[in-house]
Amino acid sequence: MEQLDGRALILACSAIGAGLAMIAGIGPGIGQGYAAGRAAEAVGRQPEAQGDITKTLLLGDAVAETTGIYGLVVAMILLFANPLITKYLSLLGQ
Amino acid sequence: MEQLDGRALILACSAIGAGLAMIAGIGPGIGQGYAAGRAAEAVGRQPEAQGDITKTLLLGDAVAETTGIYGLVVAMILLFANPLITKYLSLLGQ
Amino acid sequence: MEQLDGRALILACSAIGAGLAMIAGIGPGIGQGYAAGRAAEAVGRQPEAQGDITKTLLLGDAVAETTGIYGLVVAMILLFANPLITKYLSLLGQ
Amino acid sequence: MEQLDGRALILACSAIGAGLAMIAGIGPGIGQGYAAGRAAEAVGRQPEAQGDITKTLLLGDAVAETTGIYGLVVAMILLFANPLITKYLSLLGQ
Amino acid sequence: MEQLDGRALILACSAIGAGLAMIAGIGPGIGQGYAAGRAAEAVGRQPEAQGDITKTLLLGDAVAETTGIYGLVVAMILLFANPLITKYLSLLGQ
Amino acid sequence: MEQLDGRALILACSAIGAGLAMIAGIGPGIGQGYAAGRAAEAVGRQPEAQGDITKTLLLGDAVAETTGIYGLVVAMILLFANPLITKYLSLLGQ
Amino acid sequence: MEQLDGRALILACSAIGAGLAMIAGIGPGIGQGYAAGRAAEAVGRQPEAQGDITKTLLLGDAVAETTGIYGLVVAMILLFANPLITKYLSLLGQ
Amino acid sequence: MEQLDGRALILACSAIGAGLAMIAGIGPGIGQGYAAGRAAEAVGRQPEAQGDITKTLLLGDAVAETTGIYGLVVAMILLFANPLITKYLSLLGQ
Amino acid sequence: MEQLDGRALILACSAIGAGLAMIAGIGPGIGQGYAAGRAAEAVGRQPEAQGDITKTLLLGDAVAETTGIYGLVVAMILLFANPLITKYLSLLGQ
Amino acid sequence: MEQLDGRALILACSAIGAGLAMIAGIGPGIGQGYAAGRAAEAVGRQPEAQGDITKTLLLGDAVAETTGIYGLVVAMILLFANPLITKYLSLLGQ
Amino acid sequence: MEQLDGRALILACSAIGAGLAMIAGIGPGIGQGYAAGRAAEAVGRQPEAQGDITKTLLLGDAVAETTGIYGLVVAMILLFANPLITKYLSLLGQ
Amino acid sequence: MEQLDGRALILACSAIGAGLAMIAGIGPGIGQGYAAGRAAEAVGRQPEAQGDITKTLLLGDAVAETTGIYGLVVAMILLFANPLITKYLSLLGQ
Amino acid sequence: MEQLDGRALILACSAIGAGLAMIAGIGPGIGQGYAAGRAAEAVGRQPEAQGDITKTLLLGDAVAETTGIYGLVVAMILLFANPLITKYLSLLGQ
Amino acid sequence: MEQLDGRALILACSAIGAGLAMIAGIGPGIGQGYAAGRAAEAVGRQPEAQGDITKTLLLGDAVAETTGIYGLVVAMILLFANPLITKYLSLLGQ
Repeated sequence: MEQLDGRALILACSAIGAGLAMIAGIGPGIGQGYAAGRAAEAVGRQPEAQGDITKTLLLGDAVAETTGIYGLVVAMILLFANPLITKYLSLLGQ
Repeated sequence: MEQLDGRALILACSAIGAGLAMIAGIGPGIGQGYAAGRAAEAVGRQPEAQGDITKTLLLGDAVAETTGIYGLVVAMILLFANPLITKYLSLLGQ
Repeated sequence: MEQLDGRALILACSAIGAGLAMIAGIGPGIGQGYAAGRAAEAVGRQPEAQGDITKTLLLGDAVAETTGIYGLVVAMILLFANPLITKYLSLLGQ
Repeated sequence: MEQLDGRALILACSAIGAGLAMIAGIGPGIGQGYAAGRAAEAVGRQPEAQGDITKTLLLGDAVAETTGIYGLVVAMILLFANPLITKYLSLLGQ
Repeated sequence: MEQLDGRALILACSAIGAGLAMIAGIGPGIGQGYAAGRAAEAVGRQPEAQGDITKTLLLGDAVAETTGIYGLVVAMILLFANPLITKYLSLLGQ
Repeated sequence: MEQLDGRALILACSAIGAGLAMIAGIGPGIGQGYAAGRAAEAVGRQPEAQGDITKTLLLGDAVAETTGIYGLVVAMILLFANPLITKYLSLLGQ
Repeated sequence: MEQLDGRALILACSAIGAGLAMIAGIGPGIGQGYAAGRAAEAVGRQPEAQGDITKTLLLGDAVAETTGIYGLVVAMILLFANPLITKYLSLLGQ
Repeated sequence: MEQLDGRALILACSAIGAGLAMIAGIGPGIGQGYAAGRAAEAVGRQPEAQGDITKTLLLGDAVAETTGIYGLVVAMILLFANPLITKYLSLLGQ
Repeated sequence: MEQLDGRALILACSAIGAGLAMIAGIGPGIGQGYAAGRAAEAVGRQPEAQGDITKTLLLGDAVAETTGIYGLVVAMILLFANPLITKYLSLLGQ
Repeated sequence: MEQLDGRALILACSAIGAGLAMIAGIGPGIGQGYAAGRAAEAVGRQPEAQGDITKTLLLGDAVAETTGIYGLVVAMILLFANPLITKYLSLLGQ
Repeated sequence: MEQLDGRALILACSAIGAGLAMIAGIGPGIGQGYAAGRAAEAVGRQPEAQGDITKTLLLGDAVAETTGIYGLVVAMILLFANPLITKYLSLLGQ
Repeated sequence: MEQLDGRALILACSAIGAGLAMIAGIGPGIGQGYAAGRAAEAVGRQPEAQGDITKTLLLGDAVAETTGIYGLVVAMILLFANPLITKYLSLLGQ
Repeated sequence: MEQLDGRALILACSAIGAGLAMIAGIGPGIGQGYAAGRAAEAVGRQPEAQGDITKTLLLGDAVAETTGIYGLVVAMILLFANPLITKYLSLLGQ
Repeated sequence: MEQLDGRALILACSAIGAGLAMIAGIGPGIGQGYAAGRAAEAVGRQPEAQGDITKTLLLGDAVAETTGIYGLVVAMILLFANPLITKYLSLLGQ
């Protein structure tokens, strides 16, 4: 059985870091919901412009989505391809 | 009986990390609720455009949902397919 | 009597994590309440459109509910089917 | 007399976790109060539509209530049917 | 005289948890106050509809009250019928 | 002279818990103040409806007050009829 | 000279708890200030209704004041009639 | 020279508690400033009603001031007539 | 040279407490700035009422200032006439 | 070379306290900026009243500035005429 | 097996730092969502100007995106090209 | 080589204190930006009054700037003319 | 293998500092998104002024971007040209 | 190899302090973005006044920028010309 060592500390902090990174999702969630509401309202007023409104909504949302995806990417890297532990292991000659 | 070891630390921090990741759900919850309210209002004013309004609402919500789902995905990975502990175990030669 | 060990740490942190995950419920609570208020107002102005307004409200709320449910799901998994402790136990050969 | 042990840590953290879970109640409290205010206003303007407004209000509130109830459920489970301590005890062979 | 033991830790954390649970009361307090203000305003504009407005206000407040009551219930259970300490005692064979 | 023991920890945490419970008072304070302002404004516009407005204001405030009272009740119980310390003492056979 | 003992811990935590309880004063401070502003504005528009407006303002403020007073009461009890230390002393047989 | 003892802890925590109690001043500061601005505006529109507006402003501010004064009172008691240390000393027989 | 003793702890915590007390200044700063802006606007619209507006502004600001002054007073007492350390010294017979 | 002693603790906490006291500057910064913007707008609409508007703006800002200055004063006292360390030294007979 | 060493501390803090850096994503998420909503609304009113509106939206979003990308860049550097650990290793002569 | 001593603690806390003091810059940043936006809008409506508007804007901003400068001054003193360490050294007879 | 030393502490704190510096990105993200939305709306109303609106938007955004870039610069310096560790090394004569 | 010493503590805290100082950038980022949006809107309405609007925008932004620059300056001093470590070294006679 192993004692608490450096590798465990790195991996445990990675789990916390991944959780922190996901908090960024609050932003796009609020923003895109606002966008959806304004677009729905606009469609109600000009149903004939629905195609254009939807196109603009999706375009704007696609950009707003990016920071949420950045957070996911960082979390995923921390979880599945953690370069920090890889680095540490190479230092230990493992 | 085992003493407190590295594996326990990683798994305990994963539980905290999963809880932190779910906090991202505040964002989509506020945003989509705002969207639902504006859409309901728009339907009330132009009931004949309900189909279009609903379509736009669902489309916008689908995008806004994503960051909440990202948080869920990260939490689920931390819980059920925790790659951090897998990594740690492979390091221990288990 | 047992001393403080790794299994206790994981289970204790799971209780904290479950509590943190429920905080996400602030979001849908505010959002859906906003939606309910706007819908009630809209019904007051166009009582004849109540069916459509209610349908839109429920549809939007259903989506907004999801992140609250995600939090509940994660909390429930942490409580009843805690895969972290299962993992830890399998590591201990129990 | 017993020393501080793992079971005490799990139960103590469950008390903190139950308190954290109840904080989610801020959301529905604000949201439903907003809804009540808008509905009361709408009733004042169209008293003849009170039935419909109330129905919509209650329907929307019922959904908004859910996340508050989720928090209560998680807290109750932590208090009365704490699966974490059950798990821990089964591990100790008790 | 007793030393610091597990039972004391559980009971001390229950006091903190009860305090945390009451913080949920911020939500209904703001929400219901908002509702009271809008209702008072509506009554001022349509005094003849006071009965209906009050009925709606009380109905909406009743629902908004729930999460505050949930917090009270959890705090009361922690204080007067603390199942965590009961559980712990049964484990100690007391 | 006594050393730091479990009873002291429970009573000290009760003092902190009572302070936390009072923070809930922020909510009713803001909400009822909002209500008072809107009611005063309404009275200014329809002085002849002052009775009705005041009645509605007081009714709504009575409900909004509850969560503040809940916090007071929990704090008072923690201070004057602390069931946690009673429980602890009965465990010690005192 | 005495060492750090349980009585000191209880009294020190009571000082912190009293400070926390006063933070509740933020709520009534904002709310009543809002009410004062709206009332002053209403008086400006309908000077002849000043009596009624002031009466409503004071009535609403009286209710909003309560949670601030609750905090003061709890702080005063913690300072001057601290039942926690009384309890502790009776336990020590002093 | 004295070592760190219980009296020092109580007095040090009283200094922190007094600082915390003053934070309540944020509330009346914002609220009364809002009131002053609305009153100044109202005076600008109805200079002939300045007396009435000022009277209402001062009346409302007097009530809003109270929670700030409560905080000051608690801080002053903690500083100049600290009943906690008095209690502690009487316990030590000093 | 002296070791870390009770007097140092009290004085160090007084420095922190004085800093905390000044944070209350955020409130009057925002509030009075709001008042200044509304008054300047009102003067622009009714330059002939400048005297009355200014008088009202200063009157309202004088009240709003109080909580900031309370904070300053508490900080000054903590710094220059610290009754806590005086108390402690008298206890030590110095 | 000296060890960590009480004087160092007091002076180190004074540096933290001075930093905390400056945070109060957020309030006047927001408030006075708001005032500047409203005044600039008012000047644009009534350029002939610029003198009066500016006078009112400066008068209001002078009052709003005070809490920021209070914070500066407390910080300066903590830094340059630290009465806490003076007190401590006199206690040490230095 | 290695003990906890400096390299592990640097890499563990890098994981936390990367998570903190992603929180910056809240800003662009809210901002761009707001932009998307306003643009969708504008398109609904002037469908013929959709090209221009979209161009402006994308241009503005491109700039708003930058701070989110900065956070991602810093996180990626911390994860994949961590210059801190490289520096540390060169200091150790590895 | 020196061990951790009082001088290091004071200087390290000064670095933290300087960082805290700069946070005050959030206030003037938001406030002056608001002012700039309102002034730009006002200039657009009355270009002929640009001189007066700019003068008022700069005057108001000059006052709003002060609290940011206060923070800078305190930080600079902590960094370059740190009176706390000077005091400490004089106490050590250096 | 090295023990935890001063160099590791500096580099680890630099990673945390870099993450903190990126949080400043929340500001420009919200601000520039707001700007993008208002500009898109303005273009929709006056498509013929798109060139001017875009020019103003980019000019304003360029200034708003600066604080985000400042944060990036500080983070990059902490990561790639860390002058703190360079200083420390020169002190160690390395 | 060196042990953890005072110099390392000062330099490590300087890295944290530099990160804290950059957080001030949130303020100018929001403020200037607001200004950019209002200016873009104003240009859209009065394209012929673009020169004047831009001039005012840049002037106001220049002032709002200052607090962000202050933060950068303090961070840069902490990083590149750290007077705290210089002071400490001179004390050590290095």
